[in-house]
Amino acid sequence: MAKPLPKVKIIPLGGLDEIGKNMTVVESRGELFIIDSGLIFPEDEMLGIDIVIPDISFLKKNKERIRGILLTHGHEDHIGALPYVLREVNVPVYGTRLTMGLVEYKLKEHGLKNVKLNVIATGESLMIGKSKVEFIAVNHSIPDASAIAIHTDAGIVFHSGDFKIDHTPIIGKKGVLLMMCESTNVAREGYSMSERTVGATFDDIFMSTKSRIIVATFASNVHRIQQIVNAASKFKRKVCVSGRSMVNVVRVAQELGYLKIPKNCLIDIKDVNKYPDNKIAIITTGSQGEAMSALSRLSSASHRQLELKPKDTVIISATPIPGNEKSVSRVVNALFKKGVNVIYDELADIHVSGHACKEELKFMHALIKPKFFMPVHGEFRHLKLHAQLASEMGMKDKNIFMGHNGAVLEFNRNGGRFLPNVQAGKILVDGLGVGDVGNIVLRDRKHLSEDGLIVIVMTMSKETGLIVSGPDIVSRGFVYVRESEKLMDEAKRNVKRVLDNCEKNNITDWTTIKTQVRESISSYLYEKTKRNPMILPIIMEI
Amino acid sequence: MAKPLPKVKIIPLGGLDEIGKNMTVVESRGELFIIDSGLIFPEDEMLGIDIVIPDISFLKKNKERIRGILLTHGHEDHIGALPYVLREVNVPVYGTRLTMGLVEYKLKEHGLKNVKLNVIATGESLMIGKSKVEFIAVNHSIPDASAIAIHTDAGIVFHSGDFKIDHTPIIGKKGVLLMMCESTNVAREGYSMSERTVGATFDDIFMSTKSRIIVATFASNVHRIQQIVNAASKFKRKVCVSGRSMVNVVRVAQELGYLKIPKNCLIDIKDVNKYPDNKIAIITTGSQGEAMSALSRLSSASHRQLELKPKDTVIISATPIPGNEKSVSRVVNALFKKGVNVIYDELADIHVSGHACKEELKFMHALIKPKFFMPVHGEFRHLKLHAQLASEMGMKDKNIFMGHNGAVLEFNRNGGRFLPNVQAGKILVDGLGVGDVGNIVLRDRKHLSEDGLIVIVMTMSKETGLIVSGPDIVSRGFVYVRESEKLMDEAKRNVKRVLDNCEKNNITDWTTIKTQVRESISSYLYEKTKRNPMILPIIMEI
Repeated sequence: MAKPLPKVKIIPLGGLDEIGKNMTVVESRGELFIIDSGLIFPEDEMLGIDIVIPDISFLKKNKERIRGILLTHGHEDHIGALPYVLREVNVPVYGTRLTMGLVEYKLKEHGLKNVKLNVIATGESLMIGKSKVEFIAVNHSIPDASAIAIHTDAGIVFHSGDFKIDHTPIIGKKGVLLMMCESTNVAREGYSMSERTVGATFDDIFMSTKSRIIVATFASNVHRIQQIVNAASKFKRKVCVSGRSMVNVVRVAQELGYLKIPKNCLIDIKDVNKYPDNKIAIITTGSQGEAMSALSRLSSASHRQLELKPKDTVIISATPIPGNEKSVSRVVNALFKKGVNVIYDELADIHVSGHACKEELKFMHALIKPKFFMPVHGEFRHLKLHAQLASEMGMKDKNIFMGHNGAVLEFNRNGGRFLPNVQAGKILVDGLGVGDVGNIVLRDRKHLSEDGLIVIVMTMSKETGLIVSGPDIVSRGFVYVRESEKLMDEAKRNVKRVLDNCEKNNITDWTTIKTQVRESISSYLYEKTKRNPMILPIIMEI
Repeated sequence: MAKPLPKVKIIPLGGLDEIGKNMTVVESRGELFIIDSGLIFPEDEMLGIDIVIPDISFLKKNKERIRGILLTHGHEDHIGALPYVLREVNVPVYGTRLTMGLVEYKLKEHGLKNVKLNVIATGESLMIGKSKVEFIAVNHSIPDASAIAIHTDAGIVFHSGDFKIDHTPIIGKKGVLLMMCESTNVAREGYSMSERTVGATFDDIFMSTKSRIIVATFASNVHRIQQIVNAASKFKRKVCVSGRSMVNVVRVAQELGYLKIPKNCLIDIKDVNKYPDNKIAIITTGSQGEAMSALSRLSSASHRQLELKPKDTVIISATPIPGNEKSVSRVVNALFKKGVNVIYDELADIHVSGHACKEELKFMHALIKPKFFMPVHGEFRHLKLHAQLASEMGMKDKNIFMGHNGAVLEFNRNGGRFLPNVQAGKILVDGLGVGDVGNIVLRDRKHLSEDGLIVIVMTMSKETGLIVSGPDIVSRGFVYVRESEKLMDEAKRNVKRVLDNCEKNNITDWTTIKTQVRESISSYLYEKTKRNPMILPIIMEI
């Protein structure tokens, strides 16, 4: 009997059919490697939820076999779930210097100690368990981003991470078995613009502006921050940093040498007013219109240390992430109302994407020439379009695999196939609760959010089964009560009628009584208002 | 003493600092003319609200002086509030044929009778009260759109309506005192693309597609519907219409001659399967990802009469309105998952805006050459940029007026000035309630939506002041109760301690007891969960 061919399994636990909570498990020779550990921000209908992380039941079950978490770069959708994951499975973490600097800070914030953090340089390879793992430099909107190659006995598994091909093309890999490549911008024709175009725009603006300049961007976009610093020092402006995450990233990136700020350029926020307006540049968070961010607080005059002046120039150096368009508009309008000169994405080239466009993806495919391909990091449409792109590039359809979170794909050098799924999904984090808010709770929150609540309370005598107090009605979020006394009085009479009826018919079962009250009040209120509040009958007993 | 100069007043009641609920009052010689009467869709934080209309207190107070409502065109942000407005002030309505056809249908839906509807042709003028009113044809995404000129004794007041300069340039007006011009696309450079580019794309797609073609677009975009019909009949496809509003608009527009559909081209939806796939084109609603629309129902296989087949081609002929990006993505992804070929805005030129871009606005300014200018129909940033554009075109800053909803601007031939504001704002419509949901109710809905609700009920003896039943705790939308029994038990003990304490200290005032219970439970739960549910203590008395 011939020896079976070496195999490798790929188990995506997040990042497919969504942009966020990236996490992919590679299994080789019984050992598990986890690529990335990201979070995703909640959808609108996940009311009250703070963040969403991948379901890691599979990792918990296979704890002993995990050799490490390999991080491609330091963005939240790649590292944001780490504190939650490490609490369940404390395994070594590997990543480049800046990535690990950001991770260290994050773990400290969450009070996590005793985690083995390993800094790897791109271009280096190391043995983790039985496999050689290589971190390969790629260009992305954060420095020190990498693709990852795992040399398994079945062949090389190559994961692109997030990348754009800018000035430094990736070095080709030979004999790649499987490529997983990001798909974010696959629908965009051509090439992504170079970060340099943004630098040129900054130069233009800094040259022609006499007022203070405030630039809002992603805290994690260290390249962008560098460009702002460059423009500022070129035009002799001092730089000041505002917003908690911005301050942190600037500190970490500067300490590790990823951000070069000339001596005496950085000033403290409290010293801003000691310099003339044309000598000041302020870098802040809030480019997504986040309600509590520095820029939002500036726009509503609730920033503790800074105040906008009319004539200030505010540059929003980002485009809104889908879903954030309205909040960004709100901040832009608020800034215009303060008399500020606002430059946002519609008005100038002040942002470029960090993700590869169509032609760059083709370049990646041509360079790596993998035997098998699985698109990752995208909504379903992106994955599908990326699969089509691979097919148009000449790859056979049977070599292209459309995965999904929880899928188990097994490859050997001859082909790939799907094995039975493992558990995967979303875990909602709300305050300290991880996973204790599920569909029922969300459904109730949605119901409450739409038409509010009616509580009907009454006290019943244990002996006689008669109502001895109430019914009382309390409402919240339904109508403005003072103007609706008549409606509420009539509702109360309605409840009484139901209770009388129950008494007459000798109905004493609480559940039945509650149901009848709920249904009667519900249809009465709907008829009168066309609204469906949540109705909560409560019976007390004495 | 010299006779005072004739004056005209402009009172915007909606449409400034927002795109939607357009309504502007023009007052001349004591008479009021209302231009448009639109609605706006609620912001995310207006939980449970269906639509938002302008506050018309000013109109109600001045009912006797209103001479009519003049409609520029039949879009919801210009006619959607009509049923609500007419219920309060039943005045004659004027508009072009298609506009009035759509209005008629809308009023019938709302059960409104006895409204004087007057059909006016563009190019015509008529006397309304003491003023000559002219409707001037403009090009927009709905046919029969018009600008409106009111000839007052102070001069001509010109309102652009919504327009783009496409093939039929507007005829210049001489001696315009004041121009109000829309600002939607002022941030977009150059010219809007011609609707013809969309026609060309349709031709390409229809020519190369062998499957069924389903096109989703705005029901009100009659030009677009015409182009789809043209492409379909050119390539010998039957056309079928799905979605309530689409069916209505097609019927009205066809009856009035604004939509030309060749004989035997239109088929009933139930006959779709009688034709080969390459002989079918379906026009539907749902281009904004609306949850209950025909396209959403198709994508989730819950359409009663139609079912998508793999290989069908779905064209989404629209771009998402800000705020709808996520729901459109959701539908696109769902369609891709059904194996359907989806063509959306990123992938082909299947939509053009109906609003004038920067160069077209300049053209309008150059053509009309008004003495005074007020930007309308835009968020604050658009109004501001439009004012800047006017200034760059050479208009003196003192002749440019940045209005706001509720402002009263008075003009004579020498200048304009602001008089004291009138009441203006938003009226929220929720079910049958118009204006009965205000800030308190919305605040409660928001609170409930974020962390849910804890109801604490207890029965107190009137004689002794002692608790004779309870406290009981009921929660909704807070945690999954079955998994949190310990937390709730501890909360109950916490309430008991507070009650005992109150008893010990002879506190019998209900308000004080409730406050103490609320505060104690609130801080207990926050400490344990970092959540802030609404806490509703209810005391019953026997």
